[in-house]
Amino acid sequence: MFENTIKLLTQLRKTKPLILNITNVVTMDFVANGLLSLGASPIMSDAKEESEELVKISNAIVINPGTLSEHYLELAHEVCRFANKYQKPIILDPVGAGASDYRTKNCQKLLKDYKIDIVRGNGGEIMALLGDEHKQTKGVDSLAGSDVALESAKKLAKLYPSTVFVISGKTDWVVSENKFTSFERGSAMMPLITGSGCLLTSVIAAFHASFHDAFEASSMAALFYSICGEVAEEKSKGPGSFRTRFIDTLFQMPEKHWYE
Amino acid sequence: MFENTIKLLTQLRKTKPLILNITNVVTMDFVANGLLSLGASPIMSDAKEESEELVKISNAIVINPGTLSEHYLELAHEVCRFANKYQKPIILDPVGAGASDYRTKNCQKLLKDYKIDIVRGNGGEIMALLGDEHKQTKGVDSLAGSDVALESAKKLAKLYPSTVFVISGKTDWVVSENKFTSFERGSAMMPLITGSGCLLTSVIAAFHASFHDAFEASSMAALFYSICGEVAEEKSKGPGSFRTRFIDTLFQMPEKHWYE
Amino acid sequence: MFENTIKLLTQLRKTKPLILNITNVVTMDFVANGLLSLGASPIMSDAKEESEELVKISNAIVINPGTLSEHYLELAHEVCRFANKYQKPIILDPVGAGASDYRTKNCQKLLKDYKIDIVRGNGGEIMALLGDEHKQTKGVDSLAGSDVALESAKKLAKLYPSTVFVISGKTDWVVSENKFTSFERGSAMMPLITGSGCLLTSVIAAFHASFHDAFEASSMAALFYSICGEVAEEKSKGPGSFRTRFIDTLFQMPEKHWYE
Repeated sequence: MFENTIKLLTQLRKTKPLILNITNVVTMDFVANGLLSLGASPIMSDAKEESEELVKISNAIVINPGTLSEHYLELAHEVCRFANKYQKPIILDPVGAGASDYRTKNCQKLLKDYKIDIVRGNGGEIMALLGDEHKQTKGVDSLAGSDVALESAKKLAKLYPSTVFVISGKTDWVVSENKFTSFERGSAMMPLITGSGCLLTSVIAAFHASFHDAFEASSMAALFYSICGEVAEEKSKGPGSFRTRFIDTLFQMPEKHWYE
Repeated sequence: MFENTIKLLTQLRKTKPLILNITNVVTMDFVANGLLSLGASPIMSDAKEESEELVKISNAIVINPGTLSEHYLELAHEVCRFANKYQKPIILDPVGAGASDYRTKNCQKLLKDYKIDIVRGNGGEIMALLGDEHKQTKGVDSLAGSDVALESAKKLAKLYPSTVFVISGKTDWVVSENKFTSFERGSAMMPLITGSGCLLTSVIAAFHASFHDAFEASSMAALFYSICGEVAEEKSKGPGSFRTRFIDTLFQMPEKHWYE
Repeated sequence: MFENTIKLLTQLRKTKPLILNITNVVTMDFVANGLLSLGASPIMSDAKEESEELVKISNAIVINPGTLSEHYLELAHEVCRFANKYQKPIILDPVGAGASDYRTKNCQKLLKDYKIDIVRGNGGEIMALLGDEHKQTKGVDSLAGSDVALESAKKLAKLYPSTVFVISGKTDWVVSENKFTSFERGSAMMPLITGSGCLLTSVIAAFHASFHDAFEASSMAALFYSICGEVAEEKSKGPGSFRTRFIDTLFQMPEKHWYE
């Protein structure tokens, strides 16, 4: 797998896929910097007036309703409509599904209304998407281990057979209708920086823009991202220096630090 | 006091209080990262539709109108209404009060309309809240020393006896109806990073969520924050590295660097 | 020129000009931190209700429609109207002109409707402002070298003789109706951090607030900024540490690192 990932990275850095992020205002800066470091080209937008044009020139679309509002939802639906029309992959990050009905229902609606290629969330968010009645989130953080959410992801994958579901957490799961894979890598620092989930979603989008198979692209992206976390954690003194080193690592990999 | 602060920190990190931040778009990322490093759990929201639900699950609410607008104000009032209804503490940061009448009047209105537990501002902002006619702000920065603002804070505390007022600056003052305390700690780097005041307000909220007495919680939080600033300043080469080290220090304290 | 720049920096740090940024939500944090490190005083605003007051107390106005929307445009026009009325310099950053007609047309409209003192963009954006039919942008990134855009800038400077045009890129060009200058300095890391263009625009605003001649102020700011990039690049391990060092360098210059 690593050889494929290195090939994909090389391809990504050569083509610099344009990732359109319809995303929350908290982590935009981190997501944009992460995508630039990785080698992709980020764009953010807040206006329906340019949705069609931007979708047409983009290679993948990220929908991240982390600070959703009526204005945001109108924009997100417009962008999804065009993304499906122009056959651009959509990657959905159901931030805070489970924290409020407003978030849960609107994330479910996006999943129902459009062909979504990949969904990436933590355990609690994935469970909330299925409509699990037990609340497994604390605000935007998950109380559920990603393992508990695996059954929810499998059910979702049956309901939405053209969508790949990625659960991130201590163990990462990548689940499609017929198969799933998992790995236990990464750093405990990850959940201590805001936007680590958001950026993973956008990195998955960049990988998928460079590699057609959504299951494989998600798996490679999530494993790559976890390994970057491990590399960045070395010599970090806390979440501040970890964040800086993580951005550096996205840029340096795999040249300097690739290891099993 | 330090022993109490360490106890409070231990408690905070165990319970990970959920802090709902209705806050400005400039410093959201820094505030979220600071709260995560400290050990709290931040959530931001931009929609009235989820206000009641989010208030109910939160342990403290921060109202920071640093980039206020009609949309923001509607949301902030809705959240404050629910916070009072469900008896969740509100911590108000009157960013830029004094810079424009729009900011001053809307901050005053929030203070009048709801039970606000703690207000944290710089000298100029606290003076503006009282309606002091002499402008003591330069944009969002204070021209008034925090000492000059002490009299204003005392008057405000008489007018609002259930509110604690924190003035931050070279000297920090914590003022309630019947008592006040002060200390002169911290780093000159602090005002050189955007959001250092915003994050202090949110850290006070996290401390208050973990310690019922608003005066004591504010005092402990402000002193703790100043000491973190001193620790972070060591070996910093400018505001960039200071900011990184400050986030690290919020995470490390008190294990590695606690000192008088 | 360097002596003049040092004089200007000293003046800037003494007077701490207030820079009103009507800017995008992606890079606000970086822009605010950069201006603070430089020695200026940033303020951001999202409300027409305070536009007149804030314009009156500001020393320069930055208009950066990086995440434009109808709400943003209303605000930007209101601010520009007052800026012209009170004779405050306007510095326009046409982010993503060329990426969508919506951006291109609205940037062109701002340039037509108001006296704009300085425009700072990348090659593709400057070409789009002129209405060049060949798309030279990829999202918010330029495909055109800044050299190719020089002819467009010259034409724009004839059309708008009271405006200075700055093209940033591998070579930076500063162009007015009657003259132009260029230099090839800076770091390849610059385009790998989001907001490096936005912050340059705001730094130009701070320089211009401290030095009346727009052509000279732009030239000094752009060269200073490039040299800061070179200094920051030393020992950087990637865009994460580069960004931190760049903010530090804005603060330290010229004391520690000034060189030809």
